[in-house]
This record gives sequence, structure tokens and C-alpha cells, in this order.
Amino acid sequence: MGGPKQYFCFLLFLFPVLMLAQNRLRDHGVEIGVLHPGTFNAITDVPGVKVGHFTLNKGDSIRTGVTSILPHSGNIFQEKVPAAIYVGNGFGKLAGYTQVKELGNLETPIILTNTLSVPIAVNAMIGYTLNLPENDNVRSVNAVVGETNDGYLNDIRGRHIIEEHVLKAIENATSGPVTEGNVGAGTGTICFGYKGGIGTSSRVLPKKSGGYTVGVLVQTNFGGVLQVAGVEVGKKLGRYSNSFTYSPDGSCMMVVLTDAPLNSRNLERLAKRAMLGLSRTGGIASNGSGDYVIAVSTAEACRIPYESDSPIQKVPTLRNEAMTPLFLATIEATEEAILNSLFAGETTVGRDGHKIEALPKKKVLEMLKEAGKIDR
Amino acid sequence: MGGPKQYFCFLLFLFPVLMLAQNRLRDHGVEIGVLHPGTFNAITDVPGVKVGHFTLNKGDSIRTGVTSILPHSGNIFQEKVPAAIYVGNGFGKLAGYTQVKELGNLETPIILTNTLSVPIAVNAMIGYTLNLPENDNVRSVNAVVGETNDGYLNDIRGRHIIEEHVLKAIENATSGPVTEGNVGAGTGTICFGYKGGIGTSSRVLPKKSGGYTVGVLVQTNFGGVLQVAGVEVGKKLGRYSNSFTYSPDGSCMMVVLTDAPLNSRNLERLAKRAMLGLSRTGGIASNGSGDYVIAVSTAEACRIPYESDSPIQKVPTLRNEAMTPLFLATIEATEEAILNSLFAGETTVGRDGHKIEALPKKKVLEMLKEAGKIDR
Amino acid sequence: MGGPKQYFCFLLFLFPVLMLAQNRLRDHGVEIGVLHPGTFNAITDVPGVKVGHFTLNKGDSIRTGVTSILPHSGNIFQEKVPAAIYVGNGFGKLAGYTQVKELGNLETPIILTNTLSVPIAVNAMIGYTLNLPENDNVRSVNAVVGETNDGYLNDIRGRHIIEEHVLKAIENATSGPVTEGNVGAGTGTICFGYKGGIGTSSRVLPKKSGGYTVGVLVQTNFGGVLQVAGVEVGKKLGRYSNSFTYSPDGSCMMVVLTDAPLNSRNLERLAKRAMLGLSRTGGIASNGSGDYVIAVSTAEACRIPYESDSPIQKVPTLRNEAMTPLFLATIEATEEAILNSLFAGETTVGRDGHKIEALPKKKVLEMLKEAGKIDR
Amino acid sequence: MGGPKQYFCFLLFLFPVLMLAQNRLRDHGVEIGVLHPGTFNAITDVPGVKVGHFTLNKGDSIRTGVTSILPHSGNIFQEKVPAAIYVGNGFGKLAGYTQVKELGNLETPIILTNTLSVPIAVNAMIGYTLNLPENDNVRSVNAVVGETNDGYLNDIRGRHIIEEHVLKAIENATSGPVTEGNVGAGTGTICFGYKGGIGTSSRVLPKKSGGYTVGVLVQTNFGGVLQVAGVEVGKKLGRYSNSFTYSPDGSCMMVVLTDAPLNSRNLERLAKRAMLGLSRTGGIASNGSGDYVIAVSTAEACRIPYESDSPIQKVPTLRNEAMTPLFLATIEATEEAILNSLFAGETTVGRDGHKIEALPKKKVLEMLKEAGKIDR
Repeated sequence: MGGPKQYFCFLLFLFPVLMLAQNRLRDHGVEIGVLHPGTFNAITDVPGVKVGHFTLNKGDSIRTGVTSILPHSGNIFQEKVPAAIYVGNGFGKLAGYTQVKELGNLETPIILTNTLSVPIAVNAMIGYTLNLPENDNVRSVNAVVGETNDGYLNDIRGRHIIEEHVLKAIENATSGPVTEGNVGAGTGTICFGYKGGIGTSSRVLPKKSGGYTVGVLVQTNFGGVLQVAGVEVGKKLGRYSNSFTYSPDGSCMMVVLTDAPLNSRNLERLAKRAMLGLSRTGGIASNGSGDYVIAVSTAEACRIPYESDSPIQKVPTLRNEAMTPLFLATIEATEEAILNSLFAGETTVGRDGHKIEALPKKKVLEMLKEAGKIDR
Repeated sequence: MGGPKQYFCFLLFLFPVLMLAQNRLRDHGVEIGVLHPGTFNAITDVPGVKVGHFTLNKGDSIRTGVTSILPHSGNIFQEKVPAAIYVGNGFGKLAGYTQVKELGNLETPIILTNTLSVPIAVNAMIGYTLNLPENDNVRSVNAVVGETNDGYLNDIRGRHIIEEHVLKAIENATSGPVTEGNVGAGTGTICFGYKGGIGTSSRVLPKKSGGYTVGVLVQTNFGGVLQVAGVEVGKKLGRYSNSFTYSPDGSCMMVVLTDAPLNSRNLERLAKRAMLGLSRTGGIASNGSGDYVIAVSTAEACRIPYESDSPIQKVPTLRNEAMTPLFLATIEATEEAILNSLFAGETTVGRDGHKIEALPKKKVLEMLKEAGKIDR
Repeated sequence: MGGPKQYFCFLLFLFPVLMLAQNRLRDHGVEIGVLHPGTFNAITDVPGVKVGHFTLNKGDSIRTGVTSILPHSGNIFQEKVPAAIYVGNGFGKLAGYTQVKELGNLETPIILTNTLSVPIAVNAMIGYTLNLPENDNVRSVNAVVGETNDGYLNDIRGRHIIEEHVLKAIENATSGPVTEGNVGAGTGTICFGYKGGIGTSSRVLPKKSGGYTVGVLVQTNFGGVLQVAGVEVGKKLGRYSNSFTYSPDGSCMMVVLTDAPLNSRNLERLAKRAMLGLSRTGGIASNGSGDYVIAVSTAEACRIPYESDSPIQKVPTLRNEAMTPLFLATIEATEEAILNSLFAGETTVGRDGHKIEALPKKKVLEMLKEAGKIDR
Repeated sequence: MGGPKQYFCFLLFLFPVLMLAQNRLRDHGVEIGVLHPGTFNAITDVPGVKVGHFTLNKGDSIRTGVTSILPHSGNIFQEKVPAAIYVGNGFGKLAGYTQVKELGNLETPIILTNTLSVPIAVNAMIGYTLNLPENDNVRSVNAVVGETNDGYLNDIRGRHIIEEHVLKAIENATSGPVTEGNVGAGTGTICFGYKGGIGTSSRVLPKKSGGYTVGVLVQTNFGGVLQVAGVEVGKKLGRYSNSFTYSPDGSCMMVVLTDAPLNSRNLERLAKRAMLGLSRTGGIASNGSGDYVIAVSTAEACRIPYESDSPIQKVPTLRNEAMTPLFLATIEATEEAILNSLFAGETTVGRDGHKIEALPKKKVLEMLKEAGKIDR
């Protein structure tokens, strides 16, 4: 305990937090909702969770990548986690839905990438799983891979993601702060006509509500009429679907993790609430949007061993009526994660010279100030 | 055409509009969203639609009622309408769900009432249908009846609604302006801790988007953290679920009608968007909330005759990609309908002396002014 | 232990078993499937389960009734049971679906009756629940009521079932043998053009598969091409839908109870298998058929108290891979329950002199003998 | 018309029919159901439909392949077809489910292969679609790829299927008779403990029921207690899940095509009936089975152009009550297709010397004769 080495580590640890400091909504004094975020205001506030990015930014027209979310650091196939996927709007190619629905669990890390790279990512996850030490006899793997379409900025038809990139995103996974914006699966995505990308946020429930943490990570690539903390930014800037200044189509992947002991039924209900958070940013789940929510409980006692001597497992299960605070936490964290993705997104030029501007943060913050949303 | 009689009619017609004028959000200069409402800013802006209320306000403890919504004025059993029901959160007793899901149509008027009066209302609708002139041989009726629980203000265990009340609500159905607030099925309901009730709103799409009308009617009885036009009223007033000043449980019934020619699949997608509108008022779909959306197309060419000589019907069907503006319209109209229910709700004392205050409109409007939401 | 009194009781207990002996398929030496039935070959083989009938056979045209199934003898609202409902084909009016789906539990006895009497039965179950000793403050009840349409033999438009009949069906509920055929909710129903009604069967798993009991009770009122133990009876008798000798429409209610500790997700999977059993009798789930399966776990440790000091319950839960034998048991018991309803059904004359013959058992048994299905 | 050339063509055409003649159930005089099959008793009886196989039989341990089903011979992405997928049991990795559910259509040929080759097949279908002449600007493709697990006979972990194999299966697609058994995606599959594989069958409705054709193709790899035309073959041979002579797990892919003009809602209902057909062969949809049904309408007037000048399409739609004969046809054709896969399957030795015997047809036919199922 103590000493120069620890001190240095602490600085190292602090470094990315400080780096991120200026990009995030909350750092400007804007609070979303009534609950409090965790240490990093990130999905990694849920104990044991790791996130990794692989960013592919190459030449004039490759703007894409992969993001991995690991519910725990063990062999997930051998220690499955309770899970559910909710389809907000199914114009999308997410892999793995029907088995999660049927069996109520997840057996691989969650991967996000671009639309046309889903099969490569699934293949990578099959290989990854087959090659894990204990999985010698495994002959069936259900990979969960989500996507949004970055084809405006990225040469998506070129399908530049290869299996190694996916494995890199898993290798890169760490706990602690999560890089947001033009990174990993968010490298080439567009949100409300501005540069979107990866965003994250979390909420910690008060003790009396169980003290659980809910963490959300999003890959934003959708449209509507942008609202920031309730302020109609899109309307004021004249940037919204009805004015045809951009296509509201696209997609949003939302990953919701919690340490609350939830079964798959209540995880599906939790997942459903992320769409309510998306709505509060002005999202409308347009026809062409693939809006999916993957919800997972990381509670250790709820893990499902691949094989077991006993056919019965005693599963600690939160009662239905204790779900309400978790619903609120999910809504708030999703709203803030989406806004964080916009605040972190940086102006990007890509395929065919297409250019997408970053959110005009200065203007937006002025609007927020005028609306009384910024206290300090 | 013209002359004194017409003039008088016009005044009569204007009268209720003026009466309602002071209660509604938009009359205070607050605009929700970017699309424009129809003539009455009500579900009755959809051609042919009628709404009727029966209010049961009796003694100290009876505060309940019935509201009917008629998609058209014909025999709905003989001329069914394409329909879908979306379950936002299924802690509720709505009748008729599975048959609408299977067959994609609605064959009775839509009835809203209190939780424990659903079976009486279903029975009334069976009788109503059996007794219609052409229905002599009908032996099977699927009534759609929604509900919220008004048991805090109303002696709900007394089950005071009788079949005649339901039939009265149908008899009372008219086109034109719709009474909101403490009326019909909204007589005893509570929203965000304030008096809720019936609310309605509409949107008319621009010609280039098809020119269709979307009308929404809600029965509000739910909680969360109230937002009015994005302003965090609930947080500022300290009235939200996490502070335990009231229970966020309850329910919200949402009825979405449109003259766009939609099949049941796209109606279900439309219905789903009403939940996004609810979210924008601060609703969280708490565990104990029964949140249901009933969506119907009133387009004449889409009606489904009970019997037909031909086994094939040529159905005009809107393409998937034309749905987006309808989604936006549904979200906006639902948000505004809920807020209208709050602006129309009046302080009510009921069962066991329970008292629920009306929304403090003056305070709220001041907040809106400060936030720059009121232009005039 | 022992002595004359016990002996007498044993005889009394044997009596109804003997009475039923000649009506049931298995008594003729026909075995369905590979698993063995329980003591009564009835849903009441599941410990603690009771079944009650109220039969309304009045004058020329009233042929209807009510059947109740009680998962346990306590206050079901206070001690809810894990449950799921699967909709095989939703042309039906079953009440209670959406709440069971959302919350995963059942809070009232299960009631079966005719199509137009569902609301009366729901109302009766609300009254029943409100009036139970511990339920003074209950203001919300989700009754599960299934139905089939007995309108060919019964004056269904007359709606002759009243609330007292429903309560009688609950009062009449007993453990032990279950009366089948023209009784309770099966009084006026038709199956494959012959007199159907109530049927029941059970399976007990081998110890190595957990030793659980699965019991099924059906209300049969549907069509297709009858198969008895795989023998194409309908085809041989020229009685099947395509020959237009009768309408294949109608419905089938299936109730599946088990003492296996299942959560609602696996109960829904179990419920789904009952449709496979229906198929083996030649059922086709025609367009106009309302085919619903209600599945419940009666395992004591899985019961969900209405109120609890702890927000977490440790729930023993059967692993997914242990479900397969339960699936097989459900399929076999459903097939046999349906066939039992046909073997017990008696020729009935009802409304407008309509007459439905009993299954020509002698002929059918000869066919079975010829096909080698009868061993003795 | 006529002459030597035509005559020769006719012989050529007859040739494969004769080749298949001895393998199929119906050729032995066994009739399944009451409806009549089409010319080839194959999915290709539906006008315009083509099927192609690529079989990979290599060395000691590679026993796998790919099967393609083409609803029409045009550019399916540009002329989408109404479609639905029903999940009988979701322990499977089928790709494309959620988008088909949301949009109600299919935009690629249907591909079947082994479990771990799904992503390669999806990738192949993306490439295939991007490379079609009119698809230059396409940046989003939803491939539908089904699978069963051939890992007992095949070195599935080796993932030997490559994209070229998938494209070959499409190139090989032809109308007319369909090869069954150890071919394409059925090369290494096991059914009821015997060699399964590809099977197909069809039914043509009588004129009065619309005269439509329903064609079914299956990839069989599942278990239960085999019944052939109602005769309990599995029980008699002592080969069934409960006796642990083989694992009932596995999967069944079922593809149902029809020229009836059906919307996606009624296609989903149709798909559901295929599970009833599976049940009649003794299938139980075990926990580990991935049972999926893909249903498509090939009716030309129902095709959905990718782009259109008009936002409204007049779609001929079969009325709900005309569905019943199509349900019956689907059940019968599915049952017969599965049995055909067993009658065509040939004894196979594969990975690690694993050997799976063909169904002992001689014995089975004797049983059928004894049971009076064979007329001639």
C-alpha cells in the first residue's frame, strides 16, 4: 500500500479520465435525470465489465471498427450469463437473437461492428470460443453481434473488417474509463445528422433500492429531432428528419449491463426501457433504423454453468416490483450515453469525400444555458 | 350556401373549441415537436372518428367512468378495421389482445374504463354487438377494452360501472372537440402525482409525406419524473418516483388512429412509437404500469368485411419506408395528449378523503417561460 | 395404520376410478407414447391440484358449463404460481394473457367456459379474489379465463352462465379422478365432428429424469382429420375438414400443470409442446380455432408471495437441458387427454335440434385392433 | 406440338423422377393425409421455385454441404417477397430473423448449411447480393441462413464450407425434382437416430379452396419417437429419446413456399403449422433443437419492389378464413417431407468413425403393411 509506484499507477489511471473530461455532457454541468452515475459514468462501473475497441481508420474511405463488451473475464461459454435482447425496430442484422430469447442466456462477449461485417464478427467469435482452453468439445456457439450502418462515411461494401480486428477488440478490453466518439464500432456512425459513435453512462441505485449499478454503452447512428436534456436542439438548428436535411434512418445498438440478479424475463423488460431513453434524445426509431437492446445480468450467483451435476440451480431473483428503479436507471443512462456519443464525436471526412460535422457543442451549450439546464 | 343558419352553426361549432381553449398546453404557446396538429388537435381529426364519455362522479367515493372511441360509425363487426395492440408493459387487464394479434383486426368500438370494470365493459360490448341489426347470427365477439386503475380516488372494489354506462359512452360519441381531464375513463386517474385523465392530440403530415392524419387519445394514470416540453418539472417540484412522494405505478392507455392505409404489421410498429411519446413526458413504464397502445387504420379501402364473396381482397398498403413520418406524428401526438390530460385535470377528492391536486399550471408555465419554451 | 375405516376409504376412493374405467382409451389397451401415466391418469396427479365442474344442461338449448383448475388450495393471489400462456392460434377470447406474459405468474384459479361467458367468469373471479380473507386491500386482479365456442349445441347468445355458476365450479373442485366428456366447460363442445368435451391425462417421468409429474386437462372443440393413436380414423370415416362434413373451426383450451420447478420462460416452452400433442390427434389449428395453452408450475419453493420483506427470492430452477423429458410428457399427455375427451363424449341434442353424435367407439376400436394398436 | 425432340425431352424429364422412385414413401403406396401432392411432390411444384445443393463429402470426416432455395429467379433484393419466420424452438443460429419479422419480407435466396458455417454463408449472400447488376448502391443486406448441427458425422469445428460452396449451391439451383437424403445441407444430419437429410413434399389445394400449391423442404436433424404414417416405428424398434439410444437434440429447418397471396402475418401463421407436421413424425422439439420455419409467398402481385414511385401498393391478400386449407396442406407436406428425408437417407460413416445407419426401410414397410397403411 502506498509508495511511488502506486502513485504513478494512480496517475496513469487518472489520465484517461482527465482526457475525457472535456468531452462529456456532465462535465459541462448538465445533469440527466435524478439518479447518480458511478465512478466512471460508464458501463464499466458494473463490476467485472470490460470494453475494448478496434478502430479502422484507413485512407480516404475506411472509417469503421469493432467494439467488444465483456460481461465478465472468465470463459463466458462455460459460465453463461442471463440475458435478453429487445428489438426496438428490427431493420437490422444483429446475430444471435433467437437463441438468447429461447434459452435466456449469453455465451460469448458482445460484439458491435458495421452492418456488412456481422458475419465476419460472428465467425471470429466462433473461432474465439472454439479455441478457449476448456471448449475442446464445443460444436455449437451462439455469438451475439450487433451493428449499425456506417456506409455514408465508410466504404462498407469493401468489407474491410477481418477476424483479427474482432479479436483485437476483445484483447483491448479493459475496465475503467471507456473511450467514446469516433472509436471502435462508432468510428463512422452518424447521429441526428452529426457525428455519432460510441457513448456510455451509468447509474447507481440508492441503497434502499438495492444499490445496484446499471451501465449502458451505445453505438449511435440514428435520427429524429435532437433534444439535449430536453432542449430542442434539432428544431432550433433546423436539423431534423422532416426538413430532409439528413436521413433519419440508421440504427442504435444499446448494451445494458447490471449486477442486479435478474432473470431473462426481467432483463427483457429492462432492455425495453432503453428505447425510452433513446426517445428522450429525440430518437424516433425510423423505418430504416435497427434499434436493438442487449441486456445482461452480471450477478455471479446467476451465472449458468455450461455443464452441471445438478439439474436444478437455486437462482437469486429480484422480485418484479423491485424493477422500477432499475427501469429509471436504464432510461437515464441510455439518454446520457447517447448524448455522450454526440459530445465525443469529431468531424469526419470519409468515403467519396462525405463529411459529417461534429455536434456544434458551443452552440448547444449556449442553448442549454439559456434554457437553465446548466447550473454552474 | 351560407346565410344566418350556417353562421349560427359555425358559432355552435366554435363554442366548445373556445371552452377548451384555456386548458390546453398549446393555447399557452407551447409547441410539442415539429409537425402540425389538425383542426381540433384531437383524435377526432381523423375523419369519421367519434369519442364519447360517461362520467360517474357520485357521493364521496365514486370517481370513475367510461370512454369510447369509434373508428367509424358503421357496424364495426361487419366492417372490421385493421388493428394492432402493442404492450408497453403488461401489468394490465386489457381485453382482446390475442385475437387482434392473430387476425390483425378490430371488430368493436374501443372502450376504456377502470381495471375492475373491464369484464362488465366486455359484456356490454358483446351485448351491443349481438344486438346490432345485421348481427343476428353472430356467436363470437372480440371486444377490446382497456383500463387503468383509479382505485386511489375511486371505490374500485365497489365495481360501480354497469353495462348501461358503457352503452351510454357509445351513445355519447361525437366527432369534433373532445372533452379532456376528469371525464369518462379519466375521472379518477392520477398522472405523475397530479390529477391526470383523458387527453388527446393530433398531427397532420405534410402533403409530400402523404398528408395523413394521426390522432391519439390517452387515459393517463402513470408516473416517473414529469417533463413538460423537455422541462424537468417533476425534478424541480421534487415530485418523482425516487423521492417516494407518490407511487409511479398506474397505467397508460393510448389509442392511435390514422387514415393512412396500414396493415396490422405496420400498425403494430406505429403503436410501439406511442411509448416513445410517453417517455418524453417523463414516463418510465414502471413495474406496476399497464401501458398498452391500440392502433387502428380507418382507411375505408382497408376495411375487412365480415363476409365476402371473394377470398381475396386488394388492399392498398403503405410501403415500409413511408412509415417514418407517421412514427414521428405518433410520438408527438402522444406526448402532447398526455400533457393535455394533465393541463385539463382538476383537483379531485375521492375515496377515504384522498385528494389529488391538479398540476400547478401557473408554476409550470413559469418554468416553461424561463426555459424559453413559450414564445409569445 | 390400517383397519376397517381405511379399507372403506380405499374402496370409496377406488369407486370413481372404476366408474370411469370403460370410457377411457387406455382402458381398452391403447397406449399413447412411451411414458407412464400417474395414478388417475389425470391433471390431479400433480400433487395439490384440484378440478371442479359446473354443468348447465337445461331445456332444449342450454348445453354449457364451467370448469375450474386450482394449482393449489391456498389463496392463489397471495401465493402466486409461475405461469405462462402460449397462443397456438389466437382466434379466441381468453382473458389474462398479457399480464401473465409480463409478470410470469398466475394469481387466480384457471376457469374454462364458453366464449361469450368469459367476462362473467372474469367478474366472478374478481369477486372471488376480493372476498378472500387476506385480500382486503387488493384493487387489481388478473383472472385467467379460457373458452371455446359451444354455440352449435348451446344457446350461447343467451349467455346463461352467471357468476354463481363459476363460483360453484370452484367449490366443486376436488383432487382424485376427474369427470370427462359432457361436463363443465365441455358440456356443449364438438371435436372432429363428434361430441368432445373435457379430457385429461398425465405422465410421470422416470426418476433419472427428475420424477416429475405433468398433468394436462383439455376442453376440446376443434377439427382436422382425426387420428387415434396414429390410426387415421377421420379419413376412414370420411369425416374431415376438407370434405366439408363439419367445420374444423372451434378451439382447444389446454391446461398443463407440473410440479417441476420451472420459471415462466421454460413454462412457455412447455406450453408450446401441447400444440404438438394436439397435432397428433389430427388437429390443424384452423383459422377460426382459439388454441391456447396455460402452463403452471406448482412447485412450492417457486411460489411468489404477493408481498415479501426481501426483494430477492432464491428460486430453484430446472436447467434448460432437463426440459426435454417434460416436453415429451406434455405432448403425450395432451394427445391422450384429447382422445379421452372424445371417448367420454356422449351424443347430445341441443339448440335448434342440432345433434352431435358421440365418437363411434366400437368402430374406432376395431380400426385400432386391425392396426395392431390394441395389444390385449 | 410433339415430335421426337419433345419426346426425348420428356424422357429426360422423367429420368430423375424414376431415379427417385424407389426412395420415397409415397412410391411404396403410403399416403400421408388427405390432400394430393403436386407433379414432383416437391417444393419446386410451386411455380418458379428452384432448389440447389452443394455436397461436401471429403475424406474420413467431412460430411456437410449447402442447400439453396430460390423463391423466384429474378433479383430477390430488387423484388422482395412477403415472408415470415416462425421459431418452433430457438436453440439455433439462423440468421436474418429480426428483419424478416419487422419488415415482413425476404431479400435473398434462402440458404441452409451447418451450424458453424452460418456466418460464411451470410457473408457469401452479402457478396452475392452486392454483386448483382442492379445492386450497385446497396449497402445493407439481410441474408436468411438456416442450419442444423451435423457435428456427429462431420468435422464441424473444421468449418470446411467456404463462400464458393454457397454460391455453387445457388448456381446449381433448378426447378423440377429435388434430390433428397445425404445431399447439400443434409449430407451429415441425423433424424430419430437414423440418417436424415433433405426431404421435400407438396400439396395442391382443390379448386374450391383456391387451387394453391404449398411446397415444403426440410433439413432433418432432430429426435423424438419416430412415427411413420402414425405407426410407432421408434417405439417398436426401441429407438427413442427416453431409452437414451441417441440424443433427441439436433434441429429441423423447414421451408414453406406457396403461390397463395399471403401477407407476412398469415405467412407466420402458416409457418407455425409446419411444427404440427413435425410433431406427426414423432418430433418433440427437444431443448437442444433449433426448429425454424421460413414461409414465403411467391405470388407475383405480392412482390415488394426495393424502390417504387408510389408509396402505396395494392396488394392482393387472402382473407383469414381462407387459410385453413393452406394450414392442412402445410402440415401434411411437412410430415411427408420429413419422412422422405428418412427414406432417402443412406448409411454414413464420418468423423471419428461415427456411423449412422439408414432407416431400416424394409422393416418399417413391413410394420406399415401390418398396420394396414399400405394399400397395394
